[in-house]
Amino acid sequence: MSEARSTAGALPKVLGRLQTEEPQALQRLFRLLSIPSVSTDPAHHQACIDAAECCAGLLREAGFDARVVPTSGKPMVVGHSRDPQEPKPRRRVLFYGHYDVQPPEPLEEWTAPPFAPRLADDPQHGKVIVARGASDDKGQLMTFIEAARAWRAETGTLPLAASVLIEGEEESGSPSLTPFLAAHGHELKADLALVCDTGQWDAGTPAITAFLRGLAFSELTVKGPSRDLHSGLYGGAALNPLRVLAEILAGLHDDDGSVAIPGFYDGIRGPSPAELASWRALGFDEAGFLGAIGLSKSAGEKGRAVLEQLWARPTAEINGITGGYGGPGTKTVIPAEATAKLSFRLVPGQEPAKILAGFRRFVADRLPADAEASFAHEGGSQAVGFETSAPAFVAAARALEDEWGKAPAIVGCGASIPIVESFRSRLGMDSLLVGFALDDDRIHAPNEKYNLTSFTKGMRSWARILAALGALV
Amino acid sequence: MSEARSTAGALPKVLGRLQTEEPQALQRLFRLLSIPSVSTDPAHHQACIDAAECCAGLLREAGFDARVVPTSGKPMVVGHSRDPQEPKPRRRVLFYGHYDVQPPEPLEEWTAPPFAPRLADDPQHGKVIVARGASDDKGQLMTFIEAARAWRAETGTLPLAASVLIEGEEESGSPSLTPFLAAHGHELKADLALVCDTGQWDAGTPAITAFLRGLAFSELTVKGPSRDLHSGLYGGAALNPLRVLAEILAGLHDDDGSVAIPGFYDGIRGPSPAELASWRALGFDEAGFLGAIGLSKSAGEKGRAVLEQLWARPTAEINGITGGYGGPGTKTVIPAEATAKLSFRLVPGQEPAKILAGFRRFVADRLPADAEASFAHEGGSQAVGFETSAPAFVAAARALEDEWGKAPAIVGCGASIPIVESFRSRLGMDSLLVGFALDDDRIHAPNEKYNLTSFTKGMRSWARILAALGALV
Repeated sequence: MSEARSTAGALPKVLGRLQTEEPQALQRLFRLLSIPSVSTDPAHHQACIDAAECCAGLLREAGFDARVVPTSGKPMVVGHSRDPQEPKPRRRVLFYGHYDVQPPEPLEEWTAPPFAPRLADDPQHGKVIVARGASDDKGQLMTFIEAARAWRAETGTLPLAASVLIEGEEESGSPSLTPFLAAHGHELKADLALVCDTGQWDAGTPAITAFLRGLAFSELTVKGPSRDLHSGLYGGAALNPLRVLAEILAGLHDDDGSVAIPGFYDGIRGPSPAELASWRALGFDEAGFLGAIGLSKSAGEKGRAVLEQLWARPTAEINGITGGYGGPGTKTVIPAEATAKLSFRLVPGQEPAKILAGFRRFVADRLPADAEASFAHEGGSQAVGFETSAPAFVAAARALEDEWGKAPAIVGCGASIPIVESFRSRLGMDSLLVGFALDDDRIHAPNEKYNLTSFTKGMRSWARILAALGALV
Repeated sequence: MSEARSTAGALPKVLGRLQTEEPQALQRLFRLLSIPSVSTDPAHHQACIDAAECCAGLLREAGFDARVVPTSGKPMVVGHSRDPQEPKPRRRVLFYGHYDVQPPEPLEEWTAPPFAPRLADDPQHGKVIVARGASDDKGQLMTFIEAARAWRAETGTLPLAASVLIEGEEESGSPSLTPFLAAHGHELKADLALVCDTGQWDAGTPAITAFLRGLAFSELTVKGPSRDLHSGLYGGAALNPLRVLAEILAGLHDDDGSVAIPGFYDGIRGPSPAELASWRALGFDEAGFLGAIGLSKSAGEKGRAVLEQLWARPTAEINGITGGYGGPGTKTVIPAEATAKLSFRLVPGQEPAKILAGFRRFVADRLPADAEASFAHEGGSQAVGFETSAPAFVAAARALEDEWGKAPAIVGCGASIPIVESFRSRLGMDSLLVGFALDDDRIHAPNEKYNLTSFTKGMRSWARILAALGALV
């Protein structure tokens, strides 16, 4: 009998153990939540080291060989499951999470200290775990470690080989991650990454995030006169860079809301008709989504649903404009230059470098005489879209359906998750994005919470997903 | 024999006296130039009072009843010529100047201390008076006081009644001027104001400034979402106020460079064909003007000469835009709002309030769903255009021609001179704008100078203008 069959048979016992040992699992989570590992605050540097050591200890207890690896910033935690000797290598997954948290300020808005985790009663959600990091990301990462621990305790092994990478700089831009992946890629490369930093569709519906938009960004400066001019003495004859900039930016979109840069949409791969249909079936509350930000209708491309606009369509967005006088009152100046920061959200098939080149050509084509354009702070990353019909994807979806009683929503995310792009571009590894956060978890805000059901059903979900992935031939 | 005839006959003697007494006149100017009356610097408050007292003393020496009038800021100097008893009131002029100066900084760029006035040799202009305020405005205002002094010394009177108003806040926004005119208008009202704060056409050609553009200004804020948004999570569906603002601003001008606001040009009165012809005859160096500010061609209305664009055409100008992220690097934000500061240069026939109302309608017509516009910091003043065929104007022009050997250029100024608009709107008084500054006088800059010929021929010019205006019936 194959190992896969033996572990599959053990799943009910593993789930039972998770239920029995829930109080101890909560204690372990609270141990980690009590460490104020705020990565952006130098005063909490030692707390970050403590949190890394705590994670390594929890991994060792769960049957991993784990170590804390120093970087020039916060240390990384790396663990590998202690695997039985086998005739052939098993499928391997790499689980990613982060132990650092956002600063808890403003402290006066917390009803209890942010690093004194507690269970509270929520009128809507029942029991909730309240602490900075409860949802983002300590609670989420512990769902995986606890699932692995239960498998190890019940069967002496895991359904498949697993490595773990827990970083401590996710909330401060992950500056050490790229060099770390370059140096340690050989020991981190796996068949699939598991990333637990996303959310459910709603409290009763799990989700797998299968589409992440990419990003390209640039800063455009238009120069005109050689110095700032008095608009009375020169206005009417002198080129005004603010006007040139406004005219260029106003030309970025066509009347139907699409981006007017030639070639912008070339080669893009949209969601399949089945995926679009599944999004429509989600019953997304467009009015509620827009109403929460003070808007009544979508300002995006005509004829497309909001979820498609957010998850599967590229954008051109002005993120900032500065030029001329910005202080109080009036100053009648024609400035020598004006600057705009722009970013483009990308979908699969778009290359950041090609998009930026198209933007530069678009600007050059619209520059009047005497105007000069320069570009700075350019960069970007590709979109990521996963093949939702791949076996691992289908198996994970079925495992989630077994736990929740309904199929997971296959969703997109309009923003990038840099680690996912790095795993793909640096390690050639797809990611399975499953998380149990909810929109109202107040991450990055006071009184952050994680539903106790997110924690308990999250652990059970990972126990099932490990079994399902282990059963794949 | 009328008094006008008697004074007219005395003109050669007055001019002779000005020549003879030039060393003493220079000493008096140097006395005023040695006072550091920087109105924007509280440390120089006493110096401003000293300069006011100095001006009052110089006026008394020149035959005026003069007094220093306190305000809530810097004091005003008011003087009235001591007129002979006459059967009927004589024509009266009001001369305006200012005793305050710009800060001299950066001091290290001065080749001699800014308040130690001296005569220096200039390779292009010969003798020049070097000091802060030499040109703007102490040297200019002394040309008038010395001319009046010479008339008084030679004939015991002036060719016409004259009052003088010298303020001390011109370089700091003239906050006391409007309340002062409201309180003292009865004693300041005259048949014509003489304003000596402008320049010559070139070193050999005097000028009368007959057209001053007006101004209307507004600050437009466009609001969209109720808070700043993450451009990944919301971009593609959420309204971006920066884009709305860019589209509104880009629509302000038509392709031919004209302003696209409906009704913007309604009722404007342009210069006469004769005036346009006289401007063409000036031989203005468009390439040199534009080249000095790094430009090669006019960006203004197609088919019009630069001088017409600057002096006689209204504009819509963006003076500043702020919105979104303006710091270093990238922040992928969709801001809740964005703001632009705008100003409109106006020509005769345009009402600031009507122009601003048209702008607000223009914006309202272009606002998409969910966008709101608000307007702040609005204000303005009308353009001023003088009837160049009026007798006083013709007489002054002939007097200048007598002195310089060529007719004065009748010019415009793209900027407003607020005192001129105030004299017209508050006292119903036209202004004759004659000054002897040159473009290279370095006003507001280190090593400010005033050509000695500007001073000597300026005094003589005023002596002639006083005679010419006094001779009018």
